Amino acid sequence: MIYAGVDVGGMSIKCCLATEKGEILAKDSFKTEKDLTCAGMAEQTAACIKSLAAKAQVAESEIVAVGMGIPGTVDGKKGMIVYSNNIRMDHAPIVKEMKKHFACPVYVENDANAAAVGEAVFGAAKGLNDVLLITLGTGVGTGIIANGRMITGKGGTGAEGGHTMIRMNGEPCTCGNRGCYEAYASATALLRQTERMVQRRPDSLLARLWAERGRSGRVPFDAAKAGDPAGLKVVRDYVKYVAAGLQGMVNIFRPDVVLIGGGISNQGDYFISSVSRRLNHIVFGAGINPRVKVRAAELKNDAGLLGAVALAVKGANA
Amino acid sequence: MIYAGVDVGGMSIKCCLATEKGEILAKDSFKTEKDLTCAGMAEQTAACIKSLAAKAQVAESEIVAVGMGIPGTVDGKKGMIVYSNNIRMDHAPIVKEMKKHFACPVYVENDANAAAVGEAVFGAAKGLNDVLLITLGTGVGTGIIANGRMITGKGGTGAEGGHTMIRMNGEPCTCGNRGCYEAYASATALLRQTERMVQRRPDSLLARLWAERGRSGRVPFDAAKAGDPAGLKVVRDYVKYVAAGLQGMVNIFRPDVVLIGGGISNQGDYFISSVSRRLNHIVFGAGINPRVKVRAAELKNDAGLLGAVALAVKGANA
Repeated sequence: MIYAGVDVGGMSIKCCLATEKGEILAKDSFKTEKDLTCAGMAEQTAACIKSLAAKAQVAESEIVAVGMGIPGTVDGKKGMIVYSNNIRMDHAPIVKEMKKHFACPVYVENDANAAAVGEAVFGAAKGLNDVLLITLGTGVGTGIIANGRMITGKGGTGAEGGHTMIRMNGEPCTCGNRGCYEAYASATALLRQTERMVQRRPDSLLARLWAERGRSGRVPFDAAKAGDPAGLKVVRDYVKYVAAGLQGMVNIFRPDVVLIGGGISNQGDYFISSVSRRLNHIVFGAGINPRVKVRAAELKNDAGLLGAVALAVKGANA
Repeated sequence: MIYAGVDVGGMSIKCCLATEKGEILAKDSFKTEKDLTCAGMAEQTAACIKSLAAKAQVAESEIVAVGMGIPGTVDGKKGMIVYSNNIRMDHAPIVKEMKKHFACPVYVENDANAAAVGEAVFGAAKGLNDVLLITLGTGVGTGIIANGRMITGKGGTGAEGGHTMIRMNGEPCTCGNRGCYEAYASATALLRQTERMVQRRPDSLLARLWAERGRSGRVPFDAAKAGDPAGLKVVRDYVKYVAAGLQGMVNIFRPDVVLIGGGISNQGDYFISSVSRRLNHIVFGAGINPRVKVRAAELKNDAGLLGAVALAVKGANA
């Protein structure tokens, strides 16, 4: 069985063909045009998938389903992009447009939700019914599966855990509110927190690495691992912020596993186990209820594509 | 079709017989004994239901199912009370004990979850699939239905939205953490906030009513409605707190409706519409996404019993 996956981003649109086990047979990408229309995106995507099929010697009729992960508010039931800032589209009937090029079913969802399905089908949460994935990047994405089903909210407007208020009247957020989780726990926020500490401790190892290696989320971790007090303070506070936003979601969902994805999850066990300790200290019923499992997400570079493939596999086998 | 509902509380245990439409045919209650055992509770409950059946001239064989709402961590799948502080029980196989007295199925859930099911079956959310209920009382209870199913978390340990941190390092909470939603938005918290204001403004109408009528959640509302600045300040801040904790949950679930229950919801539209305005100002995508509907819960005095009956109706017809 062959499935197609499409990972739509603001910079590029990636396509692949894969098996039901998530083995990628062929992949390619094209640039996201500035004035992309919905029909144009469907046409370019279909052409890309069809050329992949030719390359991999797969007949088009062998493609069982297409899955697409799209940033923004996506109404999977209606097959619509309700609103996407990244690709500048709203009320775009993407499934209808895709169906002009494919006879098989096409499934669309928000990309963070698709990533959670990807981990549940192919990755660190394989076979689990209750999964909470946070992706720490430019923002904080959340993908949630409860009782085996995605939490998408009415018309796809939910699953925006990155905009949970963790500190009333706190840091300003890109969404216009103050104190959002994302304003404290995104990679962007970590850079801002590091910059502030560098200003305060210009003689620290942190400040030296920041100057030598440039602004990167790795710098505070490298400084902390070397025992630098300024680096340790930045990382400890950041861990507290990451755990603070997880706490509310975990109290509600108590999932089988909490997965952390995005670039910062590459800091590995040093970071993940710190978050786990802090989270298990502040969740409701700590010491009475079983500990919450926290793991790094497994699907790395192909997480977006495999999330989209997982949507297709899940949809076709529902 | 006749169903039995049982509302277990720390003070009393209420039982009823009702139709599938939620019409209560007969009800009674007995005191929650201090040293209640699981077997003892099942025996007393069964006796109460059987005497109600005799009173209402219903044959025991006509009872299709029994539903029970129980405070604390309840594992509905296993039919166990995992941990309940209010009735001092843990790892209690309540369904197994109840089955010694009844041939029909017995369903148990946490009482806040049962209340949400009650509203979805008989009350303000009738027929809706995605419902978020908060109950503002001694604490803040949350009951959530998403995709038509209760969110209970692993082993019934979830749905504890009252312990979402809304202010890091904030007010101490009974759970041992700081800054929990419950520490700001419960009726108990409102009394504390009022008390503080009374100390600061001893000459206010608020202080006078507080002295004359005693410590009650109605006092700040009465003072606010009379235009007293101290009362207005207490109520406005309280509305902000109630909305702050709802914000994170609404961003994730985007339910069909948010219901507010508990004594404070009796303040009616004055309170509910203030919470709605504030919430719709701070949710993600305000102005882009459709407004969030906020309503008072409909099931008042019999909310616990009808929640339990709804569990039985839903279970028997699943």
